[in-house]
Amino acid sequence: MVSQLLNGVQGMSSLIAIDWGTSSFRAYCLNESGKIFSAINSPLGILHVEKDEFAIILASEVSRLEGKQENSPIILSGMITSKNGWVEAPYVECPASCSQLAEHLVLYEDDTLGPLWFVPGLRQFTPQPDVIRGEETQIAGLEQVGEHVVILPGTHSKWVHMQDYTVMSFSTCMTGDVYSALLQNTILSTAADGSWTQTAFIAGLQAAQQYHKQQKSLLSTLFQTRAQEILGLAPAKEGKGFLSGLLIGTEICDALSLGYDSKRPYTIIGEDTLVLLYRQALELYGKSSMVPKYNPAAKGLYRIARAKNLI
Amino acid sequence: MVSQLLNGVQGMSSLIAIDWGTSSFRAYCLNESGKIFSAINSPLGILHVEKDEFAIILASEVSRLEGKQENSPIILSGMITSKNGWVEAPYVECPASCSQLAEHLVLYEDDTLGPLWFVPGLRQFTPQPDVIRGEETQIAGLEQVGEHVVILPGTHSKWVHMQDYTVMSFSTCMTGDVYSALLQNTILSTAADGSWTQTAFIAGLQAAQQYHKQQKSLLSTLFQTRAQEILGLAPAKEGKGFLSGLLIGTEICDALSLGYDSKRPYTIIGEDTLVLLYRQALELYGKSSMVPKYNPAAKGLYRIARAKNLI
Repeated sequence: MVSQLLNGVQGMSSLIAIDWGTSSFRAYCLNESGKIFSAINSPLGILHVEKDEFAIILASEVSRLEGKQENSPIILSGMITSKNGWVEAPYVECPASCSQLAEHLVLYEDDTLGPLWFVPGLRQFTPQPDVIRGEETQIAGLEQVGEHVVILPGTHSKWVHMQDYTVMSFSTCMTGDVYSALLQNTILSTAADGSWTQTAFIAGLQAAQQYHKQQKSLLSTLFQTRAQEILGLAPAKEGKGFLSGLLIGTEICDALSLGYDSKRPYTIIGEDTLVLLYRQALELYGKSSMVPKYNPAAKGLYRIARAKNLI
Repeated sequence: MVSQLLNGVQGMSSLIAIDWGTSSFRAYCLNESGKIFSAINSPLGILHVEKDEFAIILASEVSRLEGKQENSPIILSGMITSKNGWVEAPYVECPASCSQLAEHLVLYEDDTLGPLWFVPGLRQFTPQPDVIRGEETQIAGLEQVGEHVVILPGTHSKWVHMQDYTVMSFSTCMTGDVYSALLQNTILSTAADGSWTQTAFIAGLQAAQQYHKQQKSLLSTLFQTRAQEILGLAPAKEGKGFLSGLLIGTEICDALSLGYDSKRPYTIIGEDTLVLLYRQALELYGKSSMVPKYNPAAKGLYRIARAKNLI
């Protein structure tokens, strides 16, 4: 757990912003101009908290935030706003901007904490049925204008078409979820004990590109991770990096050919290690990328709260 | 466990044929002309037997075969001939026929059981690195001549290019392994509790064909099983059939476009329920198929034993 004054920004809170996901809980105190001056990060994601304990946990975590004022509005996003979370905020239809998110905030009055504002997720029916929850708030924190593409790698990676600050459409790739399931439960689990190497990762990225050109599906390419090892063509115990490259590469090649190709740099938001892998992969495929210098979730929550005139 | 006299064929064994895979053990007594007259089927696959107990299990199972003669040669195929099995039979290079398999049989003298003959698997380096073990024996039992394609659906489905009785090349699809891993370990596991329906299976097959045309990878199509449910577009609890259709359909569309397209009927070998699903899928895609009327593993073992002059 971390609690600190950040970048010398001090003061009293104007907003308490909560990014509460499946596996982690993050809380921020922001001042009137949207600067973060204290933060907490804990593993108390909704998977690790009983349904009737959300209020207790939130009160206890928020009380640890330095500089917190009693009357600051509290805004929450992430899986805590889903059916499996605390207060469900129904999906808003795409295209949707920050204002639409603000308009559909769900208010819940808590006895102890006072008014709590839950941010809705987004849904679309075309070009294919899809849903997003949590990432819409991170995207709302971005600065880039014009037509651009945002990538949010993870368990369920999201590729998002943006027009200025509006989410036009998006696509979910189950890359992280599939990677982990393959390593846990299939014949490829022999790779799980091995080390992750950069060389094998690059080889996986190159293989993905080649297979994509040949229109081979993962079902027929995955076994090659194992066959190459059996036939002595790839160093034993390097399957993990290869598989990682194969899946990330497949996700990217797929997205590029499905309309997410962009001449402008891609914005990538996510966990540091994963962002680095995606940046390397994009570079190998001739694409440039950038990473926001600020915390997009906190910034997004601030923007939505502003649009709702909560501050 | 089953032990029986089959189709009224009686006599004394000329050959004991063993198909010993990962999850099951099958033994057959065949007479001089290759007719099966007694058989045993048990769940004692190599995953369920300790390495030092292979000889004991084999002796005990074989002793239950009716009409077994002491001096009949014993021939074994399947994962029992792999590194994780009992006696490893190194892979033979493709193209390979029944004669090549016979030529590379590995002899092991067991104190109790006498000479045991282990059938090698096949390997190839082009068009892509791949290996096969167990299925080569089933294929060796086929009758079809000319150029044709054999499909062996399963945990690791195999598509095989044949020229008369020779395996020219093949391709492994991890369809069954991936299906089971996705249902056990990903967000799609909500579908595992639901029922399997024919309607959802057909919808999955149709989706696979559409996605294949659009060149979408599984990573980006899999999540739609879940999104459709969340958005109320697909009946809840029908994800299992849809996922099954999506994966089997992806395997088939992939194979058809990768050179396994054939105007002649496909030969399908495998477990009854699975064979039926593949036949339905192929029919939907305008392809005809057939199923051998005899037991291809037993017939293949007999042919290989004949080619080695064991009988």
